[in-house]
Amino acid sequence: MRPLLAEDLNPAVRNVQYAVRGELAIKAEDLRLQLQSGNKDLPFLKVISSNIGNPQQKGLDQPPLTFTRQVAALMEYPPLADLVQGKWPQDVIDRAKELQEEIGSIGAYSHSKGVPLIRKSVAKFIEERDGFPSDPEHIFLTTGASAGVSLILNVLITPNVTGVLIPIPQYPLYTATLAQFSGVALPYHLSEPDGWSTSLDEIRSALVKAEKDGVKPKALVVINPGNPTGAILDKRTMEDVVRLCEEHSLVLLADEVYQANLHRPDTHPFHSFKQVVRELQSPIPLFSFHSISKGVKGECGRRGGYFECTNVSDEVRALLYKMASVTLCPPLSGQIGVDCLVRPPRPNDPSYPLWKEETSTIHAALRHRTQLMASRLNALPGVSCVDSPGALYLYPKVELPEKAVEEAKRLGKSPDTLYALELLDATGICVVPGSGFGQKDGEHHYRLTCLCPGVEEYVGALETFHKQFVQKYGGL
Amino acid sequence: MRPLLAEDLNPAVRNVQYAVRGELAIKAEDLRLQLQSGNKDLPFLKVISSNIGNPQQKGLDQPPLTFTRQVAALMEYPPLADLVQGKWPQDVIDRAKELQEEIGSIGAYSHSKGVPLIRKSVAKFIEERDGFPSDPEHIFLTTGASAGVSLILNVLITPNVTGVLIPIPQYPLYTATLAQFSGVALPYHLSEPDGWSTSLDEIRSALVKAEKDGVKPKALVVINPGNPTGAILDKRTMEDVVRLCEEHSLVLLADEVYQANLHRPDTHPFHSFKQVVRELQSPIPLFSFHSISKGVKGECGRRGGYFECTNVSDEVRALLYKMASVTLCPPLSGQIGVDCLVRPPRPNDPSYPLWKEETSTIHAALRHRTQLMASRLNALPGVSCVDSPGALYLYPKVELPEKAVEEAKRLGKSPDTLYALELLDATGICVVPGSGFGQKDGEHHYRLTCLCPGVEEYVGALETFHKQFVQKYGGL
Repeated sequence: MRPLLAEDLNPAVRNVQYAVRGELAIKAEDLRLQLQSGNKDLPFLKVISSNIGNPQQKGLDQPPLTFTRQVAALMEYPPLADLVQGKWPQDVIDRAKELQEEIGSIGAYSHSKGVPLIRKSVAKFIEERDGFPSDPEHIFLTTGASAGVSLILNVLITPNVTGVLIPIPQYPLYTATLAQFSGVALPYHLSEPDGWSTSLDEIRSALVKAEKDGVKPKALVVINPGNPTGAILDKRTMEDVVRLCEEHSLVLLADEVYQANLHRPDTHPFHSFKQVVRELQSPIPLFSFHSISKGVKGECGRRGGYFECTNVSDEVRALLYKMASVTLCPPLSGQIGVDCLVRPPRPNDPSYPLWKEETSTIHAALRHRTQLMASRLNALPGVSCVDSPGALYLYPKVELPEKAVEEAKRLGKSPDTLYALELLDATGICVVPGSGFGQKDGEHHYRLTCLCPGVEEYVGALETFHKQFVQKYGGL
Repeated sequence: MRPLLAEDLNPAVRNVQYAVRGELAIKAEDLRLQLQSGNKDLPFLKVISSNIGNPQQKGLDQPPLTFTRQVAALMEYPPLADLVQGKWPQDVIDRAKELQEEIGSIGAYSHSKGVPLIRKSVAKFIEERDGFPSDPEHIFLTTGASAGVSLILNVLITPNVTGVLIPIPQYPLYTATLAQFSGVALPYHLSEPDGWSTSLDEIRSALVKAEKDGVKPKALVVINPGNPTGAILDKRTMEDVVRLCEEHSLVLLADEVYQANLHRPDTHPFHSFKQVVRELQSPIPLFSFHSISKGVKGECGRRGGYFECTNVSDEVRALLYKMASVTLCPPLSGQIGVDCLVRPPRPNDPSYPLWKEETSTIHAALRHRTQLMASRLNALPGVSCVDSPGALYLYPKVELPEKAVEEAKRLGKSPDTLYALELLDATGICVVPGSGFGQKDGEHHYRLTCLCPGVEEYVGALETFHKQFVQKYGGL
């Protein structure tokens, strides 16, 4: 007998790709370890993880919101309330007490759909956001939005039969999960010249192609605000998308985890698909996902999120509940995080001033960095970059010298991977090549997050590297 | 267009069964809500959830270990250290500081395999337990043991091709996950007359049957200590199991989450399969699972656990890492819990006396209840119950009156479901019928946890109900 080898495994799993933590991230980890163990020969002092929207990680250091963390600390150790009485804001102590009375110990499994009180708070948050009723029974708390997406795709996909429309570029969770469950990805391209807008014609072409290929399209994924694009859908396009789902009997999966990351809310506001579906009185089945990992909360490590089901039968919800119960429940730390996300301090609460200051500072920093980085990248020869109105990313297009493309080919890598690897080697900045998200043939992009403090120095390093790279490979 | 219906979904998912949170649990929830809203017509004052090993839930109220919770509170809100300095034990403050230096904020995604320092601590724990080396790179922290089992089965199973040997009775995670990933369950029966021992002949018969049915057996699941049986494997049997895996090229999945729940450790000690595999210098691939939800910690709501890979190639571990990275990372609260599980206070630490007292009290209570309940149940007419040496459960066999079996048939339910439903209606005690775990045709069991305080009153209610049930249906 021999050890377990990859050839012994499920072939579908071997096909899974997840570039956000792929080759670049693994190399970045290695460089970080080298720096830790005292290697002084690298041309940088720290590795900057711009490959993943992880605002609180070391080196980025976005601070957590105090309100959330004080509530969470009291949930961990209720006797602490006596020690902090009079020292911490009273609304923090009251919130923890209310949650403790409902939950009991956070060391117990909760209801598999999540703590009922927290689901009620989510429903209230959705009602206030959209102006339409929301039912706590239609809400499932999840281990981050990813777990929700995975559950819904698992339930929708009959292996090797079901097609799911996904935007290109996309967040690779979708292609990875489709590969895992042997679903068929049906890509539709977003339009870069129009600020990565969603084109109904592109979706229709993908549907025609699916029919030709004998694939049954069952669902449409929309990421709004976009990842990696940062684009925000206007309401008219959303209405068209909903009508198209009606026409083609598609389930709509709305990934809305960046709904609070709006850099120009006056010109580019967020509308939820739930609101649009209700306004149109549309019967399309809709699953909409939200998360505590993004926004200005950035509580990735808690693993919290939720999805809401709209136009989904009781029987399907019972089946989703059954599937959720096999994994028992989402972590209580994430559920507490969801409660604080959907019930933040209100203007007259003692925690409000600090909460307002903390959240405003983070919003302003994200906005400032995004705009500065976009304008500086756009000034570089061969680089063009949509100035994202939302989310946490930029997705610049980079023209690469002929010789760089040849060198990449020789190495068996995509040209943007070569670019990203050399960027990492030269600056310690880790980005994800566009090939991980998808792009048109012959184009090259990369995704970087707008989370790094010291943006002047950061973008300076990007500029210097780009010029050197172009020069090294003989110019454009 | 119509709302989403169950017939639109993946048929494999529709076949999933998970009785631990099935019909009984849903009815118990409903009764709990009735009590909350003031219904005084029920013959009991509270619902007791004996259907699930969830020690800290309301009504069971096993207290969390203070050490874990104080460390966790400091991780949530590091400035707290100033407030508790001199009030909380210094080793708590030091541990939190050490973890903070390694992790930074618990609001950040960690390494997808888990925080490196915590994986090192797990490896050290395993080395001390087994006397053989353990490599932190071979350890994956998980969102509870269930998530680990799910990942490994997903990776091993080629849909509709791969067979996995599972014990009967089994914890229904296995059948549920096999159904989810379209794997083929190959049941082998445990021997109730021999205290639910594992019989190699039964496994061999299952292998012969698989061959007849054209199914390729790839893995063998062993739950030790057993769930729902509480049986503990002796070392000789474990050696035989390992040899059998060698002979048939089987991957061994060792579910060892109850390794600390030993009621009679002198006569029924726990040995890990890792130790046995190393002692025999066996090449069989082994995945062994552990959890913070069981033992005396019972931190189910944190969702923490780990698995260790033995005799697994680098390439397979890289693939597991890729799959783990799609879900980003296990919740940090669970990872902190794992750290405290594998690095509890040591005898000279200031936290030790309290930790020792808390853990000893819980061990003693579990042992006392298990033994008392087993002996009282065994004294009932038509009931026989193996006095479990480990885990958190009893799995009594119940002889049911002919008329009860007929009545169940009329209702389209299994006889043990009828029994469990009537038990719930009469006493508020929720157990899981044996049909959810598997049993021989014509036999009837139920699983109940040994977690309820007030054991005299509790077992008294079971006794009274049983006698009334037997009488109601015309006697045995």
